[in-house]
Amino acid sequence: MIANSSNSTSKVIKKGLQTRNQILNKSVDIASAEGLEGLTIGRLSKDLKMSKSGLFAHFGSKEDLQIETVRRARDVFIESIVTPANGEKPGLRKLLALLDNWIEYVSKSVFRGGCFFFAVSAEMDDRPGRVRDLIAHLTLSWLKVIEEQIAKAVELGEISPQTDVEFIAFRFHGYVQEANWYYRLHGREVAFEYARKSVLNDLELCVTNKEDFEELRWTDKNY
Amino acid sequence: MIANSSNSTSKVIKKGLQTRNQILNKSVDIASAEGLEGLTIGRLSKDLKMSKSGLFAHFGSKEDLQIETVRRARDVFIESIVTPANGEKPGLRKLLALLDNWIEYVSKSVFRGGCFFFAVSAEMDDRPGRVRDLIAHLTLSWLKVIEEQIAKAVELGEISPQTDVEFIAFRFHGYVQEANWYYRLHGREVAFEYARKSVLNDLELCVTNKEDFEELRWTDKNY
Repeated sequence: MIANSSNSTSKVIKKGLQTRNQILNKSVDIASAEGLEGLTIGRLSKDLKMSKSGLFAHFGSKEDLQIETVRRARDVFIESIVTPANGEKPGLRKLLALLDNWIEYVSKSVFRGGCFFFAVSAEMDDRPGRVRDLIAHLTLSWLKVIEEQIAKAVELGEISPQTDVEFIAFRFHGYVQEANWYYRLHGREVAFEYARKSVLNDLELCVTNKEDFEELRWTDKNY
Repeated sequence: MIANSSNSTSKVIKKGLQTRNQILNKSVDIASAEGLEGLTIGRLSKDLKMSKSGLFAHFGSKEDLQIETVRRARDVFIESIVTPANGEKPGLRKLLALLDNWIEYVSKSVFRGGCFFFAVSAEMDDRPGRVRDLIAHLTLSWLKVIEEQIAKAVELGEISPQTDVEFIAFRFHGYVQEANWYYRLHGREVAFEYARKSVLNDLELCVTNKEDFEELRWTDKNY
């Protein structure tokens, strides 16, 4: 009996987690296209054909739902972009792998509205609170990941010691955000090619060994 | 009598235009921070202490109000950025003047939410309709203005004939959008310095006369 009861308890928990997952996947999709403010319990209940009280059982407030949605987007981002680059050698190689994964991810439009963090940054930057703080924290962490690899490349002597790390990271980050903007609003797919080419052009000016760099370039990409 | 009546008619028209102006100024401010979807007749009526029916007399629908708000933002953009560069010689000089005015404008945060078009691009890119079309049309027109001056600089022999005009415009446009993002979300004022430095670094690589270019650089800016 005890075994049976614990078995059915774990089934309930499993079912609960599945539902929660289903809600969050839908939420990230809606928020990427229509913003975090468009994320209402009413809207979700309609889209997921789920009762409002059922949704409330998972997320007590709209803010909680927004926070969990941002965290889910972070998980997908890490899984798609950061984890696949884990095996790369820190420095230039890892930097290129991370940027390549990011551009690929943005171009594939994993979420309906394109880059989740681009969309919600613009939406939330003037709305002080926990949600804005989390978005600022996560996007800054990502910028720091890029900066770290640039700094590592300097440390290893792969790129010039005169490199201004924050400045170069600003540019690289900007190319990918611009590509997302250009593609989402104007449908110009060439934007991703431009982002890749921009990163490589900038690196070409500061790498210390041009021959090594030739081998690292994304030669399989279409440009 | 006729003169008097026409006089009072023109007073009524003048008053109507003043009210309309007042509404649109408020609308641009709200939309820059909270998005065009946040622009409801109810919200405006509260903010402006004006009756809903009074507001309806000026704008028949929410969509009309959004369209007129975007047009107002366009007028301010042209007045602040494009018109002051009208006297500049087309080509490199005009290009630098336009970009300088744009960076200045974004850094001054003319509207409460920073760059109006950055905010509403991200909001509306997945919402098909008249408002999205207008935003896409206007932002693309601005990109074309930058491209035209780069093309003119090529034509005049000021920059290399090998210059890929759309690619360079993509980069310049991206630096300013990135500066807006970095400053609005992370409060890094150095972002505007980075945007200026990025434009100049890129141009330095393609100008045909480095001495002439030295004189054109924004030497009065703080970097």
